[in-house]
Amino acid sequence: MSLDLAAITAAHERIRPHIHRTPVLTSERLDAASGASLFFKCENFQKVGAFKARGATNAVFALDEETARRGVATHSSGNHAAALSRAARLRGIAAHIVMPSNSPKVKVRAVEGYGGRIVFCEPNQRAREEACTRIIAETGATLIHPFENEDVMAGQGTIALELLEDVPDLDFILCPVGGGGVLSGIALAAKGLRPDIKVIATEPAGADDAAQSFQQHQLVYQEQKNTIADGLRTNLGAPNFALVQRYVDDIVTVSDEGIIAAMRTLWETMKIVVEPSGAVPYGAVIEGKIDCRGKRVALILTGGNVDLDALPWMKF
Amino acid sequence: MSLDLAAITAAHERIRPHIHRTPVLTSERLDAASGASLFFKCENFQKVGAFKARGATNAVFALDEETARRGVATHSSGNHAAALSRAARLRGIAAHIVMPSNSPKVKVRAVEGYGGRIVFCEPNQRAREEACTRIIAETGATLIHPFENEDVMAGQGTIALELLEDVPDLDFILCPVGGGGVLSGIALAAKGLRPDIKVIATEPAGADDAAQSFQQHQLVYQEQKNTIADGLRTNLGAPNFALVQRYVDDIVTVSDEGIIAAMRTLWETMKIVVEPSGAVPYGAVIEGKIDCRGKRVALILTGGNVDLDALPWMKF
Repeated sequence: MSLDLAAITAAHERIRPHIHRTPVLTSERLDAASGASLFFKCENFQKVGAFKARGATNAVFALDEETARRGVATHSSGNHAAALSRAARLRGIAAHIVMPSNSPKVKVRAVEGYGGRIVFCEPNQRAREEACTRIIAETGATLIHPFENEDVMAGQGTIALELLEDVPDLDFILCPVGGGGVLSGIALAAKGLRPDIKVIATEPAGADDAAQSFQQHQLVYQEQKNTIADGLRTNLGAPNFALVQRYVDDIVTVSDEGIIAAMRTLWETMKIVVEPSGAVPYGAVIEGKIDCRGKRVALILTGGNVDLDALPWMKF
Repeated sequence: MSLDLAAITAAHERIRPHIHRTPVLTSERLDAASGASLFFKCENFQKVGAFKARGATNAVFALDEETARRGVATHSSGNHAAALSRAARLRGIAAHIVMPSNSPKVKVRAVEGYGGRIVFCEPNQRAREEACTRIIAETGATLIHPFENEDVMAGQGTIALELLEDVPDLDFILCPVGGGGVLSGIALAAKGLRPDIKVIATEPAGADDAAQSFQQHQLVYQEQKNTIADGLRTNLGAPNFALVQRYVDDIVTVSDEGIIAAMRTLWETMKIVVEPSGAVPYGAVIEGKIDCRGKRVALILTGGNVDLDALPWMKF
């Protein structure tokens, strides 16, 4: 594996002109409530509304000219698809996005808005992968996996570089985990720069394959996911698990009630829009899953893309 | 009137340790949609969630020691009441807040949370004023009017000082108007520093007493208010009108549909929580009420206090 701190630093130089350097926000009220000093890294303010802009941009701009000319492809339909479409357009190449025919219109419009070329397929995993393979065979496009790709991981890891520039003396970094792209990138970068920082993954209790994998020291595949945090209904990737085992100190789980309470508190107190997946780290603090009293704790607010017509507290 | 640019500069020095210097945010997407360069001054991130923290803090800390010891009072029950309670606690004095007996619990809790002493009264304007007069007679407290008080206006005007430090070369400042405290403070400060800036007030069409007053060159009192923008259901104050006539270039009105669309766009695109009153300036841009193509335009996002269980797009 060629993914190391130097690769992440190089990624940062590469993507810097194309992404936001997101702010770190603090709140006296949430500090008082938690007894810790909390530092919120606002990737909800990132381009396309989520950290995925970093990894996709790095992967697209890391391609050599000839490879790039044939375009890129993915079978993700969420924030990564929007981010890949945007990055491809910035480089002037095609992005082929395979999406199930029953995808929500808001996701289709987001990809179209960034110039992605949508290929619809039957709504099952096999059809998605087959359609993606076919597109790649036809066009010569490069598959950019949403989290198993090393350039994607390096791009997500740039969050840690900025965070540690802004707040050098952190005790903890709390990061959500789904496929593990942002977690593994951040953990590698943070431990490379400051080996004494504790990197803690936070995962919905209803999608806890990463926590199980971590405890059992082997990759656990979970068929059913049951969580409001739609961005984290993904199983941990194999290359990501290898990095998690090496660089992550612990994985804690958070109930959906805790995620929703955290999300609502962030909206009400900090006046920022955070999606359920991005509220999981603060949910872990609320639920007392991490002993952080008196500590300096960074929380990665991974994204802010929500459907304002279907907010979770309206369902409970 | 002793309110001038020097008073606003002095207010800024006075309140600086007690308030946030709020950021100015920009959005490529909203710039592209409007054809202008938009600068959003984020008073939704201010202490107590609204610009009212500035004026109340200035008024409380401008009192001499002996006067201050007798406390302060107001018959406002919104953001000003919370801001006055907070400012009084910072100075270690009492804040008497007269509120109607049918006030929403969320407002009562906000004032209590900041240490204000609530005096309930019958839910009509006369009872509120009588209760306030009685409290002042009993305690010797100083009435801090939410917008007619000069120290309050000077405090709100500090927004313009920060804004023009961060973005010196503005063409327009768009500011909501209710009682006119923030509008008159900002207009005075902005014209004092940069006489060529155009200051435009933006007002809900269903509460357009300021627009009518401006057109008719006399203060128009409006009994009925019909707008979602609950912070702007106030009639323009007399001292505020005098300053508006002198320093404000125009007043435009915005429909409630425009206000709601603006609010939703700010949440979705910028990932920030803005209350309906704070979205009125962007509503004016959406509805094409201001010819701002190619211009550099500041918009005052006055506050972010909303009830997340009753968002306006759920009612339409």
